[in-house]
Amino acid sequence: MRDFNASNITQAVIDRMADTPDPRLRTVLSSLVRHLHAFVSEVELSFDEWQGAIGFLTRTGQMCDDHRQEFILLSDTLGVSMLVDAINHHMPPGATETTVLGPFYVKAAPLMPNGSDISGGLTGEPLLVRGSVASADGTPLADATVDVWHADDEGFYDVQRLDKLGNLAGRAQFRTDAAGRFSFWTIMPKWYPIPDDGPVGDMLKATARHPNRPAHMHFMIAADGHETLITHVFSAESPWLDSDAVFGVKTSLIAEFSSHEPGTAPDGREIASTYRCLDYTFGLKPRTADLSVPPRQDPG
Amino acid sequence: MRDFNASNITQAVIDRMADTPDPRLRTVLSSLVRHLHAFVSEVELSFDEWQGAIGFLTRTGQMCDDHRQEFILLSDTLGVSMLVDAINHHMPPGATETTVLGPFYVKAAPLMPNGSDISGGLTGEPLLVRGSVASADGTPLADATVDVWHADDEGFYDVQRLDKLGNLAGRAQFRTDAAGRFSFWTIMPKWYPIPDDGPVGDMLKATARHPNRPAHMHFMIAADGHETLITHVFSAESPWLDSDAVFGVKTSLIAEFSSHEPGTAPDGREIASTYRCLDYTFGLKPRTADLSVPPRQDPG
Repeated sequence: MRDFNASNITQAVIDRMADTPDPRLRTVLSSLVRHLHAFVSEVELSFDEWQGAIGFLTRTGQMCDDHRQEFILLSDTLGVSMLVDAINHHMPPGATETTVLGPFYVKAAPLMPNGSDISGGLTGEPLLVRGSVASADGTPLADATVDVWHADDEGFYDVQRLDKLGNLAGRAQFRTDAAGRFSFWTIMPKWYPIPDDGPVGDMLKATARHPNRPAHMHFMIAADGHETLITHVFSAESPWLDSDAVFGVKTSLIAEFSSHEPGTAPDGREIASTYRCLDYTFGLKPRTADLSVPPRQDPG
Repeated sequence: MRDFNASNITQAVIDRMADTPDPRLRTVLSSLVRHLHAFVSEVELSFDEWQGAIGFLTRTGQMCDDHRQEFILLSDTLGVSMLVDAINHHMPPGATETTVLGPFYVKAAPLMPNGSDISGGLTGEPLLVRGSVASADGTPLADATVDVWHADDEGFYDVQRLDKLGNLAGRAQFRTDAAGRFSFWTIMPKWYPIPDDGPVGDMLKATARHPNRPAHMHFMIAADGHETLITHVFSAESPWLDSDAVFGVKTSLIAEFSSHEPGTAPDGREIASTYRCLDYTFGLKPRTADLSVPPRQDPG
């Protein structure tokens, strides 16, 4: 076939993929082509705008490295990440709501004993986090793996400052005890702007949007027989709760990081300064056969 | 605003961009968000698929360098480039049809006198190209700038083999004479696969598509008062004319590269081997005030 025009090219591209062996990939790519072409047609994208888009996507890819994921930032700031989250997580009563993974998760953070201090030399207001992990029906989940990561008191993650820090900090893995509990000390995280010195920052500036996220702590909790929970707990006193740059705030995920005078903390530790406590119960959704995640389909 | 879900997040993202100073950028990004979200919702994109897409886009960006533009390849193979072309070029009678730019254009190719041999050491069947450039109404256009680039007889562009070649080849710029004519010698280009050792190649393999393009020569022709013409001339005897991997073939752009026995070529040159001739007339669309291209809007 030859002589493609605005009326026939969309179907021609879809037809060209008709022999795709994986039916799910065929479905996803056909839909992508239809919606992408509909966008281009609707706005009558000019050649210069197309060139601008090619350059933007190229810069976005080239901004990525082991510790920066600009395409996740783009997905987050365009609301795509939260839409994927919403589509895939219909949570039953008792299960904690989910939110974005974000670009700062690191696989294989160090496994530490409960009660450890994970601040790794960061300075800031001490924070005791005590969590418990249960199935949605309230049954405690022992031996669950709890990944934690959070920003420091200036709003940076360890991976953004590795040269200066020399080690991971504000990041660790724990296992829940027989009662489903875990705990650790760290410092109070601050709200922060997402990295805005790249293409995503350019997009935010061009659209008159601020880059800020309210203060929060990331949790990824995995337990046998349950869907892995990816979520945050937000600080109730933080600014930006109503205009999170990545649309991630859910009311049920906002909690008090309570303030305490110097003295003996609930775990018996003597704290010489004011400090904070966060207590939070996480509910995990049981994995059922008919609700299981389909096998991964990489579009390439 | 908080607690975004699949029903309200699309409008929330669009609302967040309401203060975008440039109205065209606001229009384009709002449409992009609507169509991108509609795609994600329609296929109920899974978290693993989202991660696969992030990885694919990242690899695509990181495959790009000064001489490789993987995002243009992606746009080309998804039919987006030809759709942009179709939307922006409603050609009047007498104007040559347009096709994709492709990823191998190089700005500032060397300006050479008409009649030059641009093969730059490439071996292959000699080819004499004689073109003429006119306005759509047939008026010859003097002093037009003609950019030419094409693959060698193994299907590679100079920029794919710079290490081996040491110089540009099969690529030059000419200016038309008072009668709108230009001419040069080179070698007959071969059909070729687009570079398929990157993410786009992975996509083609996963969708059971071949990567091949029919043999062609690229032309970009700029003349005062006219829209710049970006097109190819395809060889009528090439394979793949009906399944060009980038959907670029138009019947009006297919021409005979005529075969000739050794002897005196039309320009008086003695050729010791068989050789080819291509004669082609290009028509340019006059630029009118109401049809002018809007100023560039970079989405970042």
